[in-house]
Amino acid sequence: MAPPAELRGVAVAPLPVAGFRVAAAPCGIRYRGRDDLALIEVAEQTAAAAVFTRNRFCAAPVVVAGKHLAREAPRYLLINAGNANAGTGEAGSAAAETCCAELAQLAGVAPHRVLPFSTGVIGEQLPCDKITAQLPGLLAALSEDGWLAAARAIMTTDTVEKWRSCRVACGGEAVLTGIAKGAGMICPDMATMLAFVATDLQMDAQTARKLLREACALSFNSITVDGDTSTNDACVLLASGRSGVRWNDLDDAGRRGFAAALTGLMQDLAKAIVRDAEGATRLIAVDVRGAASVGEARAVAYTVAHSPLVKTACYAGDPNWGRIIAAVGRSPVDGLDVSRIVCYLDEHLIFADGAQAAGYDEHRAVKIMSAPEFTIRIELGRGAAAAVIWTSDLTEDYVKINADYRT
Amino acid sequence: MAPPAELRGVAVAPLPVAGFRVAAAPCGIRYRGRDDLALIEVAEQTAAAAVFTRNRFCAAPVVVAGKHLAREAPRYLLINAGNANAGTGEAGSAAAETCCAELAQLAGVAPHRVLPFSTGVIGEQLPCDKITAQLPGLLAALSEDGWLAAARAIMTTDTVEKWRSCRVACGGEAVLTGIAKGAGMICPDMATMLAFVATDLQMDAQTARKLLREACALSFNSITVDGDTSTNDACVLLASGRSGVRWNDLDDAGRRGFAAALTGLMQDLAKAIVRDAEGATRLIAVDVRGAASVGEARAVAYTVAHSPLVKTACYAGDPNWGRIIAAVGRSPVDGLDVSRIVCYLDEHLIFADGAQAAGYDEHRAVKIMSAPEFTIRIELGRGAAAAVIWTSDLTEDYVKINADYRT
Repeated sequence: MAPPAELRGVAVAPLPVAGFRVAAAPCGIRYRGRDDLALIEVAEQTAAAAVFTRNRFCAAPVVVAGKHLAREAPRYLLINAGNANAGTGEAGSAAAETCCAELAQLAGVAPHRVLPFSTGVIGEQLPCDKITAQLPGLLAALSEDGWLAAARAIMTTDTVEKWRSCRVACGGEAVLTGIAKGAGMICPDMATMLAFVATDLQMDAQTARKLLREACALSFNSITVDGDTSTNDACVLLASGRSGVRWNDLDDAGRRGFAAALTGLMQDLAKAIVRDAEGATRLIAVDVRGAASVGEARAVAYTVAHSPLVKTACYAGDPNWGRIIAAVGRSPVDGLDVSRIVCYLDEHLIFADGAQAAGYDEHRAVKIMSAPEFTIRIELGRGAAAAVIWTSDLTEDYVKINADYRT
Repeated sequence: MAPPAELRGVAVAPLPVAGFRVAAAPCGIRYRGRDDLALIEVAEQTAAAAVFTRNRFCAAPVVVAGKHLAREAPRYLLINAGNANAGTGEAGSAAAETCCAELAQLAGVAPHRVLPFSTGVIGEQLPCDKITAQLPGLLAALSEDGWLAAARAIMTTDTVEKWRSCRVACGGEAVLTGIAKGAGMICPDMATMLAFVATDLQMDAQTARKLLREACALSFNSITVDGDTSTNDACVLLASGRSGVRWNDLDDAGRRGFAAALTGLMQDLAKAIVRDAEGATRLIAVDVRGAASVGEARAVAYTVAHSPLVKTACYAGDPNWGRIIAAVGRSPVDGLDVSRIVCYLDEHLIFADGAQAAGYDEHRAVKIMSAPEFTIRIELGRGAAAAVIWTSDLTEDYVKINADYRT
């Protein structure tokens, strides 16, 4: 189920999506000379689904957005960069509500139909007057072509804006456009990952939630930089229905095609986040197969993907398989039989029968691990389940960026 | 239960322990111009207990030592540094058995009464002829004063030898001497932590196992550098009984005193390992209190102690409490209530009521976190259980050392 070619980023700009208008503006919370505030206007009848960070220390906007969304589908998404509004107590919740209420009054909608999102430094109060001052201008600037500006406005330590866009032939034609920000979960006080995906396909909210949950599991919930789940993560799927194509009218192939396109687009955005991880030089897919369950495959893949020793070996381009197998060996999996484990770098067999593979070629292994992207494949020999987790390497620059950040 | 003053390392050399003779020699597996092979001779009637790595990918000597120990108490412990004999398949097991058999023949004991230990690079075959060539010399050199030489011989990337020694007044007097090696679990291919503790107290093997298990839980099993559990970790407690003081004759206070001294000695060795972690500049105690269970307290403490963002903030001396609380928030604990969490740096309150504490003093917090040792205390407000985990900071040198290691 390869995603269509349009997912590869060949489009020169994000495609407009009927039912959505977008704008960005500078409000000067942290950054100077660039937009740091984005607004997404959502047509009536749009189905909305969202997933939020599972960190119990979640930010005020996460709590407020979740509460608002539970009441009714949103008409506006308001996103600021530079201040996470996390660890801000009651005052932080009040600030998020104030921003929503001000926008709602200007736009003539109920306050709960605005969802707030914040990303940036933890522990500083959100200066909501700086945000509200920009709201009239933002509303006036709304345009179907605003997605690129929004993708740029929500960046924090990101070095490139992240968007993907495609048309999906699924028995009618639907457009999918998504934007995201985040340097993975490595982004220090800058919490962290936000993603917004819009389509003009018609569907109900229950379908949107199901599609989002499934696509998230295979994309944003399958990446890690350092395991530090942020306080502000959020991913939103919005389906305006303005294409006239209805999910309920699609046949099985059409539904599968749309779901695959959505998953592919979100995977591309997720991988773009890992590629842009602070200090990272490589994107590594940890592909675990032959597991007894998907949960087991993910547990092994995450253990390898989080291992600082594996990550520094990746940085060095060093096929140090002892580190990989040692991480597999300490994975939280009962009854793992090391003698059945097989490990490949891309297609090169490096470990089997409890020791270095007979045909191991150090030169070839170094070449693979020195590439900007490669796969560590681990076969457990326990069943038919599999999972892929994408991660980055660990470099001196990661330490430098995260140690120097507040100075 | 503070350990006696003698545990603080004021002794100028490890105390001899009746019933044990120790020697070291150079066998040239990896290092030149230094000892890299150690032998500990154990008197008959010695009670022995050992705990080994729980990594399923465990080294050949771990398997062999466990098997031998299960049959009968050991007479000899043979330890080499520079080669872990891990990931070496059947040949690795055969090499470990060969070393045991050769030594057993020279010493006139059964082969299973020798326990082999290895630490060093994973995935290279153990050159056992280099080891066996040194055995006659080692046996001839055995001495009650050999502990310091042994502590030095088992070092790999360690920068200092690690030993602690004390006398314990517990109703009679017992001597405790321990040696350890390891730069925590950060030590790249060099697997990793070994510790040997000897006493002249008399006890049975069951008591030794219980004492070792309890002391390990609060010492070696309470440290982490990077979460990368090694393939070779082992900790051995040996009780020769030659002091004439019998565990069974001790009163409760004496037993508690000995157990506290053992735990204190092993904690000191464990902390010495974290202090010597590669690239580390600080020793951080993560002290979690008010948990519903010890398991929960440990889970929270480990999540904080493993967080690369917390560790880089510690390196920077940056009181970035958002990173600490974000790590607590993603800990695997059900129903955590963030509003009840309180956090201190040493005795300075930095976080309460979901936000920065009112009396927070940035200058004071920076000063605390810039010290070589400090405590992050987290109170969960859920119960009365507590746990302390010791960890190191994450520095550019950690990355450099682990990326450059094989080059």
